[in-house]
Amino acid sequence: MLDPETYAPEHFLWSFEDGVATITLNRPDRKNPLTFESYAELRDLFRGLVYARSVQAVIVTGAGGNFCSGGDVHEIIGPLVEMEMPGLLDFTRMTGDLVKAMRDCPQPVIAAVDGICVGAGAIMAMASDLRIATPAAKTAFLFNRVGLAGCDMGACAILPRLIGQGRASELLFLGRSMSAEEGERWGFYNRLVEADALMSAAKAWASRIAAGPNFANAMTKNQLNTEWDMGLHTAIEAEAQAQAICMQTKDFERAYRAFAARETPVFEGD
Amino acid sequence: MLDPETYAPEHFLWSFEDGVATITLNRPDRKNPLTFESYAELRDLFRGLVYARSVQAVIVTGAGGNFCSGGDVHEIIGPLVEMEMPGLLDFTRMTGDLVKAMRDCPQPVIAAVDGICVGAGAIMAMASDLRIATPAAKTAFLFNRVGLAGCDMGACAILPRLIGQGRASELLFLGRSMSAEEGERWGFYNRLVEADALMSAAKAWASRIAAGPNFANAMTKNQLNTEWDMGLHTAIEAEAQAQAICMQTKDFERAYRAFAARETPVFEGD
Amino acid sequence: MLDPETYAPEHFLWSFEDGVATITLNRPDRKNPLTFESYAELRDLFRGLVYARSVQAVIVTGAGGNFCSGGDVHEIIGPLVEMEMPGLLDFTRMTGDLVKAMRDCPQPVIAAVDGICVGAGAIMAMASDLRIATPAAKTAFLFNRVGLAGCDMGACAILPRLIGQGRASELLFLGRSMSAEEGERWGFYNRLVEADALMSAAKAWASRIAAGPNFANAMTKNQLNTEWDMGLHTAIEAEAQAQAICMQTKDFERAYRAFAARETPVFEGD
Repeated sequence: MLDPETYAPEHFLWSFEDGVATITLNRPDRKNPLTFESYAELRDLFRGLVYARSVQAVIVTGAGGNFCSGGDVHEIIGPLVEMEMPGLLDFTRMTGDLVKAMRDCPQPVIAAVDGICVGAGAIMAMASDLRIATPAAKTAFLFNRVGLAGCDMGACAILPRLIGQGRASELLFLGRSMSAEEGERWGFYNRLVEADALMSAAKAWASRIAAGPNFANAMTKNQLNTEWDMGLHTAIEAEAQAQAICMQTKDFERAYRAFAARETPVFEGD
Repeated sequence: MLDPETYAPEHFLWSFEDGVATITLNRPDRKNPLTFESYAELRDLFRGLVYARSVQAVIVTGAGGNFCSGGDVHEIIGPLVEMEMPGLLDFTRMTGDLVKAMRDCPQPVIAAVDGICVGAGAIMAMASDLRIATPAAKTAFLFNRVGLAGCDMGACAILPRLIGQGRASELLFLGRSMSAEEGERWGFYNRLVEADALMSAAKAWASRIAAGPNFANAMTKNQLNTEWDMGLHTAIEAEAQAQAICMQTKDFERAYRAFAARETPVFEGD
Repeated sequence: MLDPETYAPEHFLWSFEDGVATITLNRPDRKNPLTFESYAELRDLFRGLVYARSVQAVIVTGAGGNFCSGGDVHEIIGPLVEMEMPGLLDFTRMTGDLVKAMRDCPQPVIAAVDGICVGAGAIMAMASDLRIATPAAKTAFLFNRVGLAGCDMGACAILPRLIGQGRASELLFLGRSMSAEEGERWGFYNRLVEADALMSAAKAWASRIAAGPNFANAMTKNQLNTEWDMGLHTAIEAEAQAQAICMQTKDFERAYRAFAARETPVFEGD
């Protein structure tokens, strides 16, 4: 069981305070690339967060003025070139499992992005729930520049839902960088803030989310995922059931009592 | 059978002229909240519109400078806090049924929004086909501020299709208000007009739609709903069938004859 | 088998150079309308492109300062008015088959749009992968102005994914023209360029795409199509398989070798 107070990952930094966990990719000399080991450790962490009830919101960021340079050329791409299909599929499923785990954990995930955000780094930003960037953020789904397809870790499914099918097609077929301004205008980035305000902006949103109602917020995230491919009527029925469940929480009653007493509700997550 | 000429609802205002029906939420002292009774009456109205052939377009608006403040805290939230699951599910299904009925009626629905547009009010705007707002419109899916999830009445399915998955996530996880300017920029509001031009703008669009071709417009709405979760090939075949049906209408022939005679077509709905 | 070097269509112009094919609709006196014959020939061409390995990217454009005025009123709409259902369905399926074929061919398709782009012309732009327009482009899904529904050739499925459900509803219910500026702002057009730079901009993108990796780019297009209605987990697994296949291409190894040697990769498509 993941204990956020004592969790000590090998391949990235971790901090935890007031319900907010912060993951910092931390190989700043190489712009924070991912390796086989860091992919696996991130996947296991996000899977573990399902059971870590005291974690209410997660921030993902990078050290040293960059978010993430993607899969390391020497440590990942080199070995992949030598692999047979079973090994390749093990790898692509592991990276896909990281996205699945980021989507499946109940905590909203906020990507705080400065500088380089490319390849698997761009995917981690995409797989987050909310994204804040600096004006210097350069985001590229550059898979075809390394000979691969744009369909990496869910990009052909998720990116069109964030920025539209046409803009997603452009980024995936041209492999070009999306500027921070484009990212905000197109709906990829929720906000742009200056670099020295990036972490405080991410923490402010994370704290607001961590204040709850956390059971209900987790249900929102669940429904955003599961309604992805539902028909309209099915989705509306699914929400009727999900919201009725939330109406049985004490947090719903707490909100009502607080309103009646003209106070601010204090949510407790049950 | 709903007769739009004589229909006299108890919980909102109704007017009908030249094929255009206008629904006005009308408790302006409380910013037009919804109650159990008004939800049910709205649901029944939209269900009845399926058979009300003389109604060609619908406007939904609010009295007194606001659209709708959502479910009434005292008349709805208070009682819900006391309910068991069967009653809760009856309620969430009733509210979901209102959205289903707004989507399923053949008439395009235009929301004309000024001022407060929150909770179930924001949902009614979202469930409409077209949305016009004033610069003063404040739109919030504030469910988590009352202890509930953002998955209310289809919001996790519909809102991402209107404004993108990332912006929808922000509104649902933060519960914050979307400004009118954001709403227009993000694709929630089709147009912004000054308050004194709001109803005339909505009526101009409604009249244009009511001029027909109404059978074809209803087919468009049907396909926008039913293709929601179809694959690409399936959707294209569905449109081949739907459009072939429309090509058998007299309105199609009327348009062709008018074009050949250099006249403006007069559509009759058959 | 389609040979792009010798292909000589009857109803539009064709050119082929350096892996890039250009289709030019060419009845400029009528703003390049489509006829039964040109629909069928375009459908057959795009179907044939599946096997034309030397074609790596396709540009679709129109002669004489306009893209396409849609189905010809005299040559198409007139005869349709006289037809029974079997003939009507033959026609709507043929036009739908053109969109299916544009989506199913492995080559990214770039629409280069100036002037009038309406009806089936707007659909051909919509069905392309990328869209470049001039400031003079006027794009209208004007089906209901000729008595028909907006659900033509996939519009109710594809247009909402490009510009959002609300804006698509507006264009389909009002039949109004979308300006080039709106088209860019809403994500329909990827870029706006002046008329004298339109073809060079389209060719620059086509050449960049034609430089490869073409096997991988075709996989990207395939996944953008097939993930349309997949659930999130299913899509991520589909991408794990698709990308693992691409990792077995020599182009992936070529990119790695080029990177290690600090050279620009030269892709060969296998």
